[in-house]
Amino acid sequence: MNRKLRMGMVGGGRGAFIGAVHRHAAALDGEIDLVAGAFSSDAERSRQSGRDLFLDTTRVYGSYVEMAQKEAALPRDERIDFVSIVTPNHLHFPIAAEFLKAGFNVVCDKPMTHNLAEARKLRTLVKGSGKVFALTHNYTGYPIVKEARDLVKKGRLGEIRKIVVEYSQDWLSTMLESAGQKQAAWRTDPKQAGLAGCIGDIGSHAENLARYITGLKIDSLCADFTTFVPGRKLEDDGNMLIRYKGGAKGVLIASQISPGEENNLVIRIYGSKAGLEWSQQSPETLIIKYAGDPAKILRRGHGYLGKTATGNTRLPPGHPEGFIEGFANIYREAAKAIREEVSGKKVKVHDYPDVEDGLYGMVFIDTAVKSAASKQKWTKFPKV
Amino acid sequence: MNRKLRMGMVGGGRGAFIGAVHRHAAALDGEIDLVAGAFSSDAERSRQSGRDLFLDTTRVYGSYVEMAQKEAALPRDERIDFVSIVTPNHLHFPIAAEFLKAGFNVVCDKPMTHNLAEARKLRTLVKGSGKVFALTHNYTGYPIVKEARDLVKKGRLGEIRKIVVEYSQDWLSTMLESAGQKQAAWRTDPKQAGLAGCIGDIGSHAENLARYITGLKIDSLCADFTTFVPGRKLEDDGNMLIRYKGGAKGVLIASQISPGEENNLVIRIYGSKAGLEWSQQSPETLIIKYAGDPAKILRRGHGYLGKTATGNTRLPPGHPEGFIEGFANIYREAAKAIREEVSGKKVKVHDYPDVEDGLYGMVFIDTAVKSAASKQKWTKFPKV
Amino acid sequence: MNRKLRMGMVGGGRGAFIGAVHRHAAALDGEIDLVAGAFSSDAERSRQSGRDLFLDTTRVYGSYVEMAQKEAALPRDERIDFVSIVTPNHLHFPIAAEFLKAGFNVVCDKPMTHNLAEARKLRTLVKGSGKVFALTHNYTGYPIVKEARDLVKKGRLGEIRKIVVEYSQDWLSTMLESAGQKQAAWRTDPKQAGLAGCIGDIGSHAENLARYITGLKIDSLCADFTTFVPGRKLEDDGNMLIRYKGGAKGVLIASQISPGEENNLVIRIYGSKAGLEWSQQSPETLIIKYAGDPAKILRRGHGYLGKTATGNTRLPPGHPEGFIEGFANIYREAAKAIREEVSGKKVKVHDYPDVEDGLYGMVFIDTAVKSAASKQKWTKFPKV
Amino acid sequence: MNRKLRMGMVGGGRGAFIGAVHRHAAALDGEIDLVAGAFSSDAERSRQSGRDLFLDTTRVYGSYVEMAQKEAALPRDERIDFVSIVTPNHLHFPIAAEFLKAGFNVVCDKPMTHNLAEARKLRTLVKGSGKVFALTHNYTGYPIVKEARDLVKKGRLGEIRKIVVEYSQDWLSTMLESAGQKQAAWRTDPKQAGLAGCIGDIGSHAENLARYITGLKIDSLCADFTTFVPGRKLEDDGNMLIRYKGGAKGVLIASQISPGEENNLVIRIYGSKAGLEWSQQSPETLIIKYAGDPAKILRRGHGYLGKTATGNTRLPPGHPEGFIEGFANIYREAAKAIREEVSGKKVKVHDYPDVEDGLYGMVFIDTAVKSAASKQKWTKFPKV
Repeated sequence: MNRKLRMGMVGGGRGAFIGAVHRHAAALDGEIDLVAGAFSSDAERSRQSGRDLFLDTTRVYGSYVEMAQKEAALPRDERIDFVSIVTPNHLHFPIAAEFLKAGFNVVCDKPMTHNLAEARKLRTLVKGSGKVFALTHNYTGYPIVKEARDLVKKGRLGEIRKIVVEYSQDWLSTMLESAGQKQAAWRTDPKQAGLAGCIGDIGSHAENLARYITGLKIDSLCADFTTFVPGRKLEDDGNMLIRYKGGAKGVLIASQISPGEENNLVIRIYGSKAGLEWSQQSPETLIIKYAGDPAKILRRGHGYLGKTATGNTRLPPGHPEGFIEGFANIYREAAKAIREEVSGKKVKVHDYPDVEDGLYGMVFIDTAVKSAASKQKWTKFPKV
Repeated sequence: MNRKLRMGMVGGGRGAFIGAVHRHAAALDGEIDLVAGAFSSDAERSRQSGRDLFLDTTRVYGSYVEMAQKEAALPRDERIDFVSIVTPNHLHFPIAAEFLKAGFNVVCDKPMTHNLAEARKLRTLVKGSGKVFALTHNYTGYPIVKEARDLVKKGRLGEIRKIVVEYSQDWLSTMLESAGQKQAAWRTDPKQAGLAGCIGDIGSHAENLARYITGLKIDSLCADFTTFVPGRKLEDDGNMLIRYKGGAKGVLIASQISPGEENNLVIRIYGSKAGLEWSQQSPETLIIKYAGDPAKILRRGHGYLGKTATGNTRLPPGHPEGFIEGFANIYREAAKAIREEVSGKKVKVHDYPDVEDGLYGMVFIDTAVKSAASKQKWTKFPKV
Repeated sequence: MNRKLRMGMVGGGRGAFIGAVHRHAAALDGEIDLVAGAFSSDAERSRQSGRDLFLDTTRVYGSYVEMAQKEAALPRDERIDFVSIVTPNHLHFPIAAEFLKAGFNVVCDKPMTHNLAEARKLRTLVKGSGKVFALTHNYTGYPIVKEARDLVKKGRLGEIRKIVVEYSQDWLSTMLESAGQKQAAWRTDPKQAGLAGCIGDIGSHAENLARYITGLKIDSLCADFTTFVPGRKLEDDGNMLIRYKGGAKGVLIASQISPGEENNLVIRIYGSKAGLEWSQQSPETLIIKYAGDPAKILRRGHGYLGKTATGNTRLPPGHPEGFIEGFANIYREAAKAIREEVSGKKVKVHDYPDVEDGLYGMVFIDTAVKSAASKQKWTKFPKV
Repeated sequence: MNRKLRMGMVGGGRGAFIGAVHRHAAALDGEIDLVAGAFSSDAERSRQSGRDLFLDTTRVYGSYVEMAQKEAALPRDERIDFVSIVTPNHLHFPIAAEFLKAGFNVVCDKPMTHNLAEARKLRTLVKGSGKVFALTHNYTGYPIVKEARDLVKKGRLGEIRKIVVEYSQDWLSTMLESAGQKQAAWRTDPKQAGLAGCIGDIGSHAENLARYITGLKIDSLCADFTTFVPGRKLEDDGNMLIRYKGGAKGVLIASQISPGEENNLVIRIYGSKAGLEWSQQSPETLIIKYAGDPAKILRRGHGYLGKTATGNTRLPPGHPEGFIEGFANIYREAAKAIREEVSGKKVKVHDYPDVEDGLYGMVFIDTAVKSAASKQKWTKFPKV
């Protein structure tokens, strides 16, 4: 199949943030063409966005339903190969369902759905469809994060004992949602964001990152949520103690009211033999620490890294790759699966977060919300 | 009183760690002379240590009881002005009591006592004695920590919302106490260390640091303790969620099994206006962070710092001061009070941790231990 | 002109490094389509590369001459709008000349030409052609570098006194060119690289960066070149003292034999009021330093940055942008000019390095080589 | 000889900077007592300083000549064992000469003398006296610097190719000497400071550090000096290219007008096998860098460091040691020699800078001054 994949997009019109990121990520490698979109629920706004993006006007739609139907009606060698869903959370499920039913592969932003019930339904839908479903937990796309996972798998840390993962931001330190900021408005509105604010938006990334690297599942957790900004409807700070299956302990810290923290996702994992540290804001570096031996600074791009990290690298060391490149790795992996699906081949396992990861994340959010409301210390993590 | 103060020491013989630190700290400013000691419960070992330290052999004692009695019997212009207690925890109380009763001022290592009951008794004793009692929670001696406290007091952070404090080490990653390491042996032995291991030894420093900077008292806490190294008698890792009086939230992380962490005490405090970050391993730097404005790097020694930080500084910026200098600041402040007491003047308030701080710390340890054993989420912090 | 620009590429076939970077950079914003190429002087290799890139086989050429002629013969609404030249240095001139003469705009990798004579000729050619010529001194594409330039222009540093700029790498620490490494082979071969090795390849970036930020021109310089690896034909380490016009002083350090330095381009500029520091390996941060006031950490993406930095930003703070994004900024600025040219509009001044910058860089290399061979301390920088 | 050493001090009265540092350094280990001093050329000021320091008033002198004579006249078991000279540079020689002639060992601040002629005379005097002469090039006292030297000696870097050493400060960014600042006044006055300003004061430390670690001697150098602040009498910025004997190349950067640089002494050394980096402002860390292998972070206090670093360490890792501790290491090494001398034993080689180092440093300053005035590129380093 020697052609670029054709992508459609739902959401991501003018003024949106994450839609542009998806487009950069998809474009970066020259393997995917954006050819269609329903960029806004406002049809005129959608058209304008389509023009900004040099799209054929006949492929710019006024609604996602129209898009799914009309694209499905196009000849096989014209219609999109997959759709990217970059809307607020509450729309993920209906859009994904629509496109899956219309026979399209799906890439979807996180968290997967508005609530746990939808997540379970979506899993059933995806399983039944045979289509590719990829969730952009993008932080697992960084090569150095992949190296961290490899090192844990190889036993370099020994038995994992402790995970400290934090995701702190400051952008909701004030009542931004009253100031007409669109991002703030929907992310703090339970009707669009879901049951959780900070934990849903970024705590879920932190959990996903810890699980991606260590493979550890949660046994039970104990959460404390706070809404610091008066009038806000969802928590803007959430911290929890975690007990992992197998005996490891965790601390997860999330905040959107921590002044000066931009997008401070940091993970440290300590095992019986060694520890590791990675910070998203310096994503090219992995520090491996030892008790009584010099720490080592591993850097993206070097020959001493494993195959997975190397395969997700575009530039030599010292030529910084960043957020878009990591995001693009999710797209590139999903694209491999989509090419297989579109070509009628068996879809193999590739390295992107899938519907199971998405469901796990929704269970995590749900359990954290329950724990925050509970007087009991430990809230059991249910079967996913 | 134009002379050096005369110090005696109990503990700190050959092979000990913290005794030497106390001696360096006391010596640094040329205001205190070590003149007497009971350096070991082994009289011969005590004598050897006295010789190492160029002491007059008649002032080197075989036991602390002998020392208290004989020093008290010396003429006023010869005998020690205060004693430094640098033994394992379980001996702090009896020694302090002995010297207070014999009429001496006391500097004592932390945690203050072996258990909470002793701590309450010691408070009564100190109050009744009119003597100076200083506890070496040395991390509050760093000039930059004092600046942090000043900035919080001046309202530069706004209302405090969140405190993340961590103290991680790696030295107990393995069963060091079985390997004949003296430090490890007593610090992991409940008979010498007390009810808690990691939380007593270093978690208490973390709590003290947070309280010193913010003045916040704990309302309730929720702790999870783990003993990772098989066979160990006390927890070697402890984490907790904290609710402060007034609404701030806290996360306290302590560990002695985190490979590669040497003595990693880090505190971050976030308020409604700004955040701050300080790391003990880079103690000269205080980062003040803002939502939407450039962070500022404050450095020890500059004219822009407050009076307290400046008064605790010995060198110009860029000439690193460290652990001993911070420790010496505790000694220097205590020495001011001791000079007043010895001169028969009213003892004013100086900037060192006192018996109240010590008692608060013991209540903290006790409450954390209770919480760790509880199925209830929040354990109330009792009245101190 | 509501369509994507059409790009052709010369060089950059399988196994090349910089060609892929140019493609990523051009693709990132979805405004440029790669539609044609002569990727290798080996026609079969060129064809393979074309297939890898999903190109129409009729637009993949066996030589750049063929490409220039055939593209020029295509209808206006099909042919390329510009060519990207990503070959070894010695081919830049003939290729650029060919495409300029055929009526195409040109984007060219640096250094601009193989020698100074060619550079002067190329300037004449470009001036006469009315076409756009952009040189990818990509490090000036970083938003934070642009902020640095703005701050200097606004006088925030006061009068510039001192510039310390360094570009160190380690990849030529050994005789890599004998090991069949293609990059090493041509970059150390005077016939392909030019008169200088290390100074031509990376020293020229350092000079360009300093000039971009400060606007300062060189009065005279004093260089010391060394070839540390036996058998190598060009210098692999070069350092120089610089006297700028107007009185500022400079130190320029370049090396390709410094173990552990990946791509360590760092610049510090000190003025009468303030200093600044930027490091390419942490490209999101600009530190502004004051004598006696706290340093400030400026970070990409914030509202407090100037218009230029903001206009070259794609992501919010804390979502790392890197090398490709900076490179893409050069492309995006050049694309503005190319759109104007293609639309028959007057080409305005945009923010990309042009033929004058390229010529200045060639004079710099030439002067450094002369100085390195001279016994005289200061070698005058000639009129450009 | 089981007693503390008795130290006298010349200079270092109220308001001085370096005198207090020497006192802290000497006091730290409890092995040296300050017992006498001529702290100021103003006798009343000297007396006041003596009182501040709790000295016996009969041992506080109005001049160094009086001090040398009266101390020499005291009984052997009372008089000082050595003198510390902490005056401005121009007095080092006469004072050192006086005390050497009176039979005392000498510790002297750097640079050793006011000019090269004095330095040569002092060497002769010291050699003839049989006394200990130690120069406080304190930066070589840091344990991690000693580790660096050991690693170079063991060949871990391979053959040394390049040294980049920098010492930058900002405190002379303005005409501080006109503002009544005592330190600035004498350090910028050729009558007190010597032929060079910045290079004499701090450039000499940089040279000494490079030589201490690598053992390399200078073959020739090429210096550029600038006086940026109008009206200043000596250079406040000096940079040079260096050719070491044996083929290594160097760049030495020194500045006292670089805003935001506190005391930024940084050295990087690159060999054929590895590189190393050390920064005085983070003195506990040594980074060892490799081409193609992960860098290692070596930290003070660990068991993996060599004997010399370990022997100069007082605290466990993560308990920061700083400037005073490094300074104290020079004192401790000199004290070993002084104890031998005082006890009438053969004085062995210990690890402190001696009169040869001091003379080398004076030749360095002299040669740099000559080069700065020369039109010739390379100025030969003369025989020391």
